[in-house]
Amino acid sequence: MSSPVDQLAILWYPPAYDIRVEKVAFPRIEHPDDAIVKVKLAGLCGSDLHIYRGTAGLTESCVCGHEFVGEVIELGSSFHPASRDRPSLYSTLKVGDKVISPFTVSCGECHFCRLGFTCRCAECCLFGTPSTPGGQAQYVRVPKAGGTLYRLGEVVVAYAGQELEMRRSIPKLADSSLLMLCDILPTGVFAAFQALNHPKSLPMTTSHPYPHSSTIVTLKGAQAPSGLRQHDTVLLIAVIGLGPVGMCACIAALDTFYTKGLDFKLVAIDLNEARRSKLARIYSKISQEQERGYLQVASIEDSRNIVSEWSNGVGCSVVLEAVGNNSALSLAYELVRPFGCITSVGVHSNSTVPFTGQELYDKNVSLDFGRCPVRAMFPMALDLLVRRQDIFGEIGGEVSLVDKVVGFSEAGRMYEEFDKGKCGKVLFDPWK
Amino acid sequence: MSSPVDQLAILWYPPAYDIRVEKVAFPRIEHPDDAIVKVKLAGLCGSDLHIYRGTAGLTESCVCGHEFVGEVIELGSSFHPASRDRPSLYSTLKVGDKVISPFTVSCGECHFCRLGFTCRCAECCLFGTPSTPGGQAQYVRVPKAGGTLYRLGEVVVAYAGQELEMRRSIPKLADSSLLMLCDILPTGVFAAFQALNHPKSLPMTTSHPYPHSSTIVTLKGAQAPSGLRQHDTVLLIAVIGLGPVGMCACIAALDTFYTKGLDFKLVAIDLNEARRSKLARIYSKISQEQERGYLQVASIEDSRNIVSEWSNGVGCSVVLEAVGNNSALSLAYELVRPFGCITSVGVHSNSTVPFTGQELYDKNVSLDFGRCPVRAMFPMALDLLVRRQDIFGEIGGEVSLVDKVVGFSEAGRMYEEFDKGKCGKVLFDPWK
Repeated sequence: MSSPVDQLAILWYPPAYDIRVEKVAFPRIEHPDDAIVKVKLAGLCGSDLHIYRGTAGLTESCVCGHEFVGEVIELGSSFHPASRDRPSLYSTLKVGDKVISPFTVSCGECHFCRLGFTCRCAECCLFGTPSTPGGQAQYVRVPKAGGTLYRLGEVVVAYAGQELEMRRSIPKLADSSLLMLCDILPTGVFAAFQALNHPKSLPMTTSHPYPHSSTIVTLKGAQAPSGLRQHDTVLLIAVIGLGPVGMCACIAALDTFYTKGLDFKLVAIDLNEARRSKLARIYSKISQEQERGYLQVASIEDSRNIVSEWSNGVGCSVVLEAVGNNSALSLAYELVRPFGCITSVGVHSNSTVPFTGQELYDKNVSLDFGRCPVRAMFPMALDLLVRRQDIFGEIGGEVSLVDKVVGFSEAGRMYEEFDKGKCGKVLFDPWK
Repeated sequence: MSSPVDQLAILWYPPAYDIRVEKVAFPRIEHPDDAIVKVKLAGLCGSDLHIYRGTAGLTESCVCGHEFVGEVIELGSSFHPASRDRPSLYSTLKVGDKVISPFTVSCGECHFCRLGFTCRCAECCLFGTPSTPGGQAQYVRVPKAGGTLYRLGEVVVAYAGQELEMRRSIPKLADSSLLMLCDILPTGVFAAFQALNHPKSLPMTTSHPYPHSSTIVTLKGAQAPSGLRQHDTVLLIAVIGLGPVGMCACIAALDTFYTKGLDFKLVAIDLNEARRSKLARIYSKISQEQERGYLQVASIEDSRNIVSEWSNGVGCSVVLEAVGNNSALSLAYELVRPFGCITSVGVHSNSTVPFTGQELYDKNVSLDFGRCPVRAMFPMALDLLVRRQDIFGEIGGEVSLVDKVVGFSEAGRMYEEFDKGKCGKVLFDPWK
């Protein structure tokens, strides 16, 4: 059976660096839980480069992209008001609804989804791979759409079984701003959230010494001694990598520090001067009239001196790693202090991580690895997005994370420039 | 200057497996913060074997042992009631007081001590090394004794600056029981505490999905959806290594599960059948009349099948590693589920840890490494010790962790037997 060839998409071809814009089959409902979404905007993301460079292990061509916002144009048979034991979107999503998709599919119904670990859903698939064509197309099929999609307007946060509706009036946000919710903003929020909620960070964020700072599952016998001095609770934090995710991690961390009134010193590290300058401008915007804490951007070499000076040689409480290679992990270990944590959201390769057991033991290091459960992080990320429209609402501005919106015809050039660090985040408008 | 040669001690000689009982210099106050303790009992600990086997990198002989309880017989000039800005023991500790020592020195006054990270104290030293002669002696010098020692009777938990006294009537506990507080019991408590308080465990322990389960430093926008089913919150936990520390970790975990009413399944893994049987007996004692959860002891091979059966192939929420080698870490990775944590309290060597970045990313694994901050964990460990005297109060019994108390003359043989797994925990009575 030959499918109708009636939509445009950006495709990657093996082995590497081969991007083509081609006509491909119009997607169709393959399962009752599917939705077809007409794409309004699709993003080019740092992790697309793993595929682009041929290091993701793919041998088959595929429609690219795992970031997209759009409008529902067709729904499978599962979507009717009688689907009461399914995630609420199955009974409330309608043709014409505006939706955002996380970069992975999550059913909303399995054990992992119920626990909030949505990126490890039992039915998980990653958009932009041969088995799950991506969003850099005019139309895209979304599997398990009642668990995966996030509907705007009347925002519904729902998990299997019981339903909870979080109704909020979302201001009219631009599509380019909403697109941040597919991956980079929740991932940045996830990085900051993990790091600041780690039991080894809690003495700084709660002003109670370890182990009294972790009050959720205390064993008996705990009673909080005090005696902390003001400088003990200053959170010294490093962010390695100021691509869009690292940038979002900095913004999420700064927002938390100011919202919670925490003292901090943040060193934000990247090889690229343009990225560093942009973050410096973002920082002056966020820090206006705030008295606590400060941020310094730095090259790798400078970062060592800054951390050493700031901490008297002790190191950082927390290091966020948003690069995804062993040099970044080694730098993270170098910068982290005893009883510190390294939170890695970088996508890593098949190399053994560069730590000996003794190094980790000797510094009492904790490490968190892995992919953001975007669907579970949506509400927090959306809240930050709405509040920081001065940053996320712009395109190509002094502080905006999105550099430009282009048509598909420029896809090949954009992949090349993005790969070489010659441009920031690019969005594709499939209708331009 | 030659020192008086007037006490007996157990010494290790390089390169390996050479234990001698010899007369050595009576320790003397070398610094105003020192105390001299007359040792009542000293323990032989699993991590002494790193030195015994010559794998700790030591090239000089030393007095062994980092576990001891005893009585203060001499104090430096810092110990007088006027020492009000020092840790409270500097003004309250008296000659004749009964004390327990953690296995590391902690000043109680530095940044790390104030935060509760006492094992990474700026003045940290490990007893039983050339620079800090150990407790397997008749007398021992305790540096920074006002921060390091734990005084019994009227128990004082104090940190620098402000002082908080936690006065409790401690029942008359046997010295052999108190000795558990020097290392193994707090380390077991630390392992369990870290694992159960990790943000990735909180959905199970709080019944709130991630990220709503971490309520301490929430970003705005969080609102807890529900929909968890009962089996979602069963904590499936593996403990690798049933030496004394692993045993204590199991007891601490079980005690927490029962105290908090948490559902669990615990698989406790060791090569050694005698250790497995002992833990099974301990479990029947602890679990009496409790309905929740269960424990199964297992060999390595069996553990894979048990975890797979229990979890439908998903894996454990939490793996505690109390061995200290790469095989144990590899097994931990194999058993842990996506969004699980590996908490390692084993003392590791100079080998690179056996994980690729991709493995850690693909499972969203978190890892905690390092030494127990015993001084900070004392109150929790003491509470458990007091409540579980049916286990910790015995010597050589069916469920006791202490196998026997011997004199120094048997030191060589005991090191050998302990190294070969032919006996359980041994204590030395220097006066026997």
